[in-house]
Amino acid sequence: MNQEKVSELRKWMAANQVDLAYISDPAHIGYFSGFESNPMERVLALFIPLEKDPFLFAPGLEVESAKASSWPFDVVGYLDSEDPWKIIIAEIKKRYGDVKKVALEKGQLVLDRYLILVEAFGNADFSADLTPMIQQLQLYKTKEECDKLVEAGRSADLAFEIGFKMVKAGATEESIVAEIEYELKKQGIKQMSFPTEVLAGANAANPHGSPGKNTVKQNELVLFDLGTIVNGYCSDATRTVACGEPTDHIKKIYDLVLEAQLKAQAAVKPGITAAQLDKIARDVIEDAGYGEYFNHRLGHGIGTTIHEFPSIVGGNDMEIKEGMCFSLEPGIYLPDDVGVRIEDCVYVTKDGCIPFTQTSKELIIL
Amino acid sequence: MNQEKVSELRKWMAANQVDLAYISDPAHIGYFSGFESNPMERVLALFIPLEKDPFLFAPGLEVESAKASSWPFDVVGYLDSEDPWKIIIAEIKKRYGDVKKVALEKGQLVLDRYLILVEAFGNADFSADLTPMIQQLQLYKTKEECDKLVEAGRSADLAFEIGFKMVKAGATEESIVAEIEYELKKQGIKQMSFPTEVLAGANAANPHGSPGKNTVKQNELVLFDLGTIVNGYCSDATRTVACGEPTDHIKKIYDLVLEAQLKAQAAVKPGITAAQLDKIARDVIEDAGYGEYFNHRLGHGIGTTIHEFPSIVGGNDMEIKEGMCFSLEPGIYLPDDVGVRIEDCVYVTKDGCIPFTQTSKELIIL
Repeated sequence: MNQEKVSELRKWMAANQVDLAYISDPAHIGYFSGFESNPMERVLALFIPLEKDPFLFAPGLEVESAKASSWPFDVVGYLDSEDPWKIIIAEIKKRYGDVKKVALEKGQLVLDRYLILVEAFGNADFSADLTPMIQQLQLYKTKEECDKLVEAGRSADLAFEIGFKMVKAGATEESIVAEIEYELKKQGIKQMSFPTEVLAGANAANPHGSPGKNTVKQNELVLFDLGTIVNGYCSDATRTVACGEPTDHIKKIYDLVLEAQLKAQAAVKPGITAAQLDKIARDVIEDAGYGEYFNHRLGHGIGTTIHEFPSIVGGNDMEIKEGMCFSLEPGIYLPDDVGVRIEDCVYVTKDGCIPFTQTSKELIIL
Repeated sequence: MNQEKVSELRKWMAANQVDLAYISDPAHIGYFSGFESNPMERVLALFIPLEKDPFLFAPGLEVESAKASSWPFDVVGYLDSEDPWKIIIAEIKKRYGDVKKVALEKGQLVLDRYLILVEAFGNADFSADLTPMIQQLQLYKTKEECDKLVEAGRSADLAFEIGFKMVKAGATEESIVAEIEYELKKQGIKQMSFPTEVLAGANAANPHGSPGKNTVKQNELVLFDLGTIVNGYCSDATRTVACGEPTDHIKKIYDLVLEAQLKAQAAVKPGITAAQLDKIARDVIEDAGYGEYFNHRLGHGIGTTIHEFPSIVGGNDMEIKEGMCFSLEPGIYLPDDVGVRIEDCVYVTKDGCIPFTQTSKELIIL
């Protein structure tokens, strides 16, 4: 259990007159309870009252693992043949009596589960939203969390090293992906934080393209966007490298993206806003006439999940503060021509930031 | 676009006086529209009115791919710096005027998106639930869908073949997983339908255990639970094999699970209920005194997602019908001792069923 985070949650509950918090997102249940699990369509839930002991509710299959985790309180289980909500409602009533104000994760809880609770606790107030509260809590990473993000970053660097060795004309994108994940798995890095992208030539101009039988070609670029999960924390990084000497046109696009990325990264420090960071990178690309081809935000927060707050995007005037962790990933995607993206996730310090990935960002020609 | 499924949906809408259906689950959007995408935290939505043309709403990054898909109607996009809901609400009002009854996926839609809609369309009735309607629609697979499931099953058989070759005393679970996924990726099978499980010895007694540095040991079992995604359809199968001759105790457990699996599979035919199938398998294991160690349902439906309807579980009196596809996966898990599960997914025919996976279920000794 993460005692510090549970205490923060309870402070917020007290300030908002909430007597019960229902954590429904499995990643957030892991964050508070220490018990990591993907229940798929089964019900996993964490109930934290303001004062009495909390309890974890889990599929019967998971009860032993939950008890063996760092979670020190009760674990209530259910069988596939039972109605989990009947048990949950009875447990809440037995343990906490008449709850008056229940906080929910409105950004994650699905509608039918909400409607069941509203029916069961008709007199309760369900207006309190845990989503922004948890986002706020997760916005600032502790030293311990940053260490985990650094370790995840290290394995992303390793993944680049493996992948770059495979770059040669004729290699398929999917064979390079296979090699990266194979080598990582052999070294005990079991889980990617999202499907690895290796995109050659013009295929990289689709920022959500998918690796397939398309091959690396001489004098073209290869974009690698990848990440791992290590001890529950994610890495996410992008490098674009060349197979042989690229054309001047390609180099120009690369240099623009690199300049945008480096300028934004150099500008990160407490006090600047998310929108300002986005603008610093976007201005470089817009001033060169490629603004319309940088068609996504500059970055997103990272932690136990791959996309969290802050969103580094125009219009977001959130001030950057020490302890925030996010990506800086400008790109230019010219349809049917060339795609470049360069991305580091960084940790904001007192007076700047430190990237989690160390692989060189200068154009690597393989 | 799947015209047949959209027509079925509209028939249901007409019968329920629904004038607008909002499909929010990305897998279901793919099912109806033909456009497959994982938008993560961004908004992807499909709006199907009873009479006018539907439209797809997608992140700006995805608009080109969506237009290039088989979806023949409008695709409306948004930028990361825009509020997607402002655009959605304006589009709905512009295209469809005052909507009176909106059907939602209550089993998937998150609460805050629902609350936005309720506020924007305060006079509309949101009581209609698409979740059971889509479950019902997906319950019956067409010939074309079955062909895709057969193909996915074939790659699961290939995965077993690769994995079984790696079984020898001293091999780590994670190295076997790495090899399976590497070989599949090299053969163009990019995506597993869930994290591959290879569990050796007593580690297999945790039905949701995770492969790690634990090694295969002589005269013990190795459980493989794996699946692939091919053309958007999933496979899911489990085999338990032996590394060298196992003890009589282990063989007895294996034979019980095999008997339970075969009896249930032999009993599948239109007219039997899900609960009856579960009982047939469970009786074999209970009669031998191991009932408490078969602590999960017999099976689950399979299709574009890994767990759908029907749930093959005690208490579910749903009648099995031709065209349903589901798993049959009894197991016995004796803590700190031995774990066995055997699973095939099957397709219900006029008078029986056909499994999607063909790998032998007799105990294979490697």
